[in-house]
Amino acid sequence: MARRAAGTAAEAEAEAEAELRRLVQDVARVGELARELQDSAANLISRTSNEEQALRQRAVGLDADLRRIQTSVNAAVRRGGTLDAKDADKLDEELCRARWLISDGDVGSLLPNKSHGRFLKMFLGPINVRAIRKDVRLKVKEEYNNYRDRTAFMFLLFPSMLLLLRAWVWDGCFPAWPVQLYQAWLLFLYTSLALRENILRANGSDIRPWWIYHHYCAMLMALVSLTWEIKGQPDCASKQKGVQLFLEWAVMQAFAMLLQNRYQRQRLYTRIALGKARRMDVVWGETAGVDGQLWLLCPILFILQGFEAYVGMKLLLIASEGLVPEWQVVVCGILLVLMAVGNFANTVQTLMVKSRFKAKMKRTRSKQELDAPPSPNNSR
Amino acid sequence: MARRAAGTAAEAEAEAEAELRRLVQDVARVGELARELQDSAANLISRTSNEEQALRQRAVGLDADLRRIQTSVNAAVRRGGTLDAKDADKLDEELCRARWLISDGDVGSLLPNKSHGRFLKMFLGPINVRAIRKDVRLKVKEEYNNYRDRTAFMFLLFPSMLLLLRAWVWDGCFPAWPVQLYQAWLLFLYTSLALRENILRANGSDIRPWWIYHHYCAMLMALVSLTWEIKGQPDCASKQKGVQLFLEWAVMQAFAMLLQNRYQRQRLYTRIALGKARRMDVVWGETAGVDGQLWLLCPILFILQGFEAYVGMKLLLIASEGLVPEWQVVVCGILLVLMAVGNFANTVQTLMVKSRFKAKMKRTRSKQELDAPPSPNNSR
Repeated sequence: MARRAAGTAAEAEAEAEAELRRLVQDVARVGELARELQDSAANLISRTSNEEQALRQRAVGLDADLRRIQTSVNAAVRRGGTLDAKDADKLDEELCRARWLISDGDVGSLLPNKSHGRFLKMFLGPINVRAIRKDVRLKVKEEYNNYRDRTAFMFLLFPSMLLLLRAWVWDGCFPAWPVQLYQAWLLFLYTSLALRENILRANGSDIRPWWIYHHYCAMLMALVSLTWEIKGQPDCASKQKGVQLFLEWAVMQAFAMLLQNRYQRQRLYTRIALGKARRMDVVWGETAGVDGQLWLLCPILFILQGFEAYVGMKLLLIASEGLVPEWQVVVCGILLVLMAVGNFANTVQTLMVKSRFKAKMKRTRSKQELDAPPSPNNSR
Repeated sequence: MARRAAGTAAEAEAEAEAELRRLVQDVARVGELARELQDSAANLISRTSNEEQALRQRAVGLDADLRRIQTSVNAAVRRGGTLDAKDADKLDEELCRARWLISDGDVGSLLPNKSHGRFLKMFLGPINVRAIRKDVRLKVKEEYNNYRDRTAFMFLLFPSMLLLLRAWVWDGCFPAWPVQLYQAWLLFLYTSLALRENILRANGSDIRPWWIYHHYCAMLMALVSLTWEIKGQPDCASKQKGVQLFLEWAVMQAFAMLLQNRYQRQRLYTRIALGKARRMDVVWGETAGVDGQLWLLCPILFILQGFEAYVGMKLLLIASEGLVPEWQVVVCGILLVLMAVGNFANTVQTLMVKSRFKAKMKRTRSKQELDAPPSPNNSR
């Protein structure tokens, strides 16, 4: 009995010993595997970075060639002579396509980063926000559009609620904190929009710089308005005139944002659908099919910009009459007028670029129609 | 004469023709080169992403193995028996090393991104802020330290100037706008610090979550204090008591920041110097050589936290006595107390972890000394 117990104990010990040995072997094995994996990863990273470096050098050289040849073509066009307009157009198109392949294609992601701009550096430090793969870059843009959609509803809801509550609950006089909450939200919103737009730019979007500056102005205005004391009774209506005008403008702005988002989204979908098509096609696709909406959007934008300027002038008038002695009124007034003028100028410029491009497209087309034999499909 | 002129004209025309042909050839050549380059880049990107995918799968599999084996080792340790403490330590160390290779080595950069956290998503959207190469990741951390250094001076200068100007120029009564400018700067500073710390975390830093939460609280406080009207005469001193206390605390905070930065920087340099050493070594290196500074830093930190809590309580007291009826006083008071308590708890925890680790290191060392033959270098 005692012997058998001793035997079992010895067996158990032997088994435990064996298990321990297995464990030690397992640990050694995974340690070895981890080291191998680390070596493979280090190898892949260094190999990739060498190949990228080689491609980068080729791209930089080709870019210089392109510039040189473009200068020659331009000079030849200026001299006139043997180079007729059609040939010049063809050469231009070929060069444009090559340039686009380098800047917007897969090569573009390997090129040295364009500077990310002071704004991103100020907030994030010098990190890289450029995605390597093109589909990821397009996804960044889509997410930005989704974000704008989501916030546009808030943008509509928040000031509407404030105006309604003032009429129904607050007896025509805003309490300070809901307005300040709204202003704080605006500050956050404009900051995040400005950050996201800078990231979009770093990812190769051709967003006009003004729209980003515009958000800087809006950030500054939200910040200034936070320090602007909301005064109440007595004579609430005249003291809160500025706030009321601003909120009404915000409601209109929200409608315009919703419309703009619809328009932009359709542009992007066209872009994604065209995929790796040539840039010219892509730009053409951008205006195709949404012309009707543009004619609805433009008047609304212009009315909005007019109202923005009106609110700004009104604030400046209030300040000059000495009704409200605070510096915030003057700063907000100047910022609103500035934004209205900038928005107007940029909307007009965008429209001019679009119409000029369309005229060129029409010219090219009618020329093609002259060159090509007439066909039922072509004579529209 | 006419013939010769005609001849020259013909020659010139032929030359222009030849130049045009050269130009067309050049354009065709660069177009071809651009297409080739695009193909190479697309090829490299897809090849790299396939290889990364394969490594990623190996890493995920190995990670699961590691977890399984760690569980077995833990179970064996709990059972006791044949596995003595020394063997267990050895196995633990081997596993730890393997885990570290996977998570912090070059493999780590290929693993699926950890979620970046809601804060980054809110401001930046879902972009990737993780650098692939380890040296870049360390550079991000160094840049963060530089940023802290630069801002620490501002952090010292700004409130000191305000306090000095109040005494010398402003007759003991702050005007509103310089204080508000300071608060706006604080809001920007804390936002950018919180963003950068979240980016650091995404890049594998082991920064304690509390320090990030702490900056969220500070952001909120800066925002709230912006809406807090700075009242002037009459009875300026008592109305501005809160602002004055806050500024005095800020000056002390700046000194602590400068000291902390010195300490953190030395930790980082040790880390970089140790390079690809094992994590254990790295952690050991972190506390080595800076113990003296820690004993200077800790009392200062505790005094600061005490003063922070005092300012918070004072604000709550002011509010409860109904001297200043604004909600901002209550919110700022609560936030300050919260931050003081959190800071204290986290400083104590950090110190405890450090001392526990040191005790373990000492034990390991004395064991090694027992195992190894005594030598003059080893008997210190």
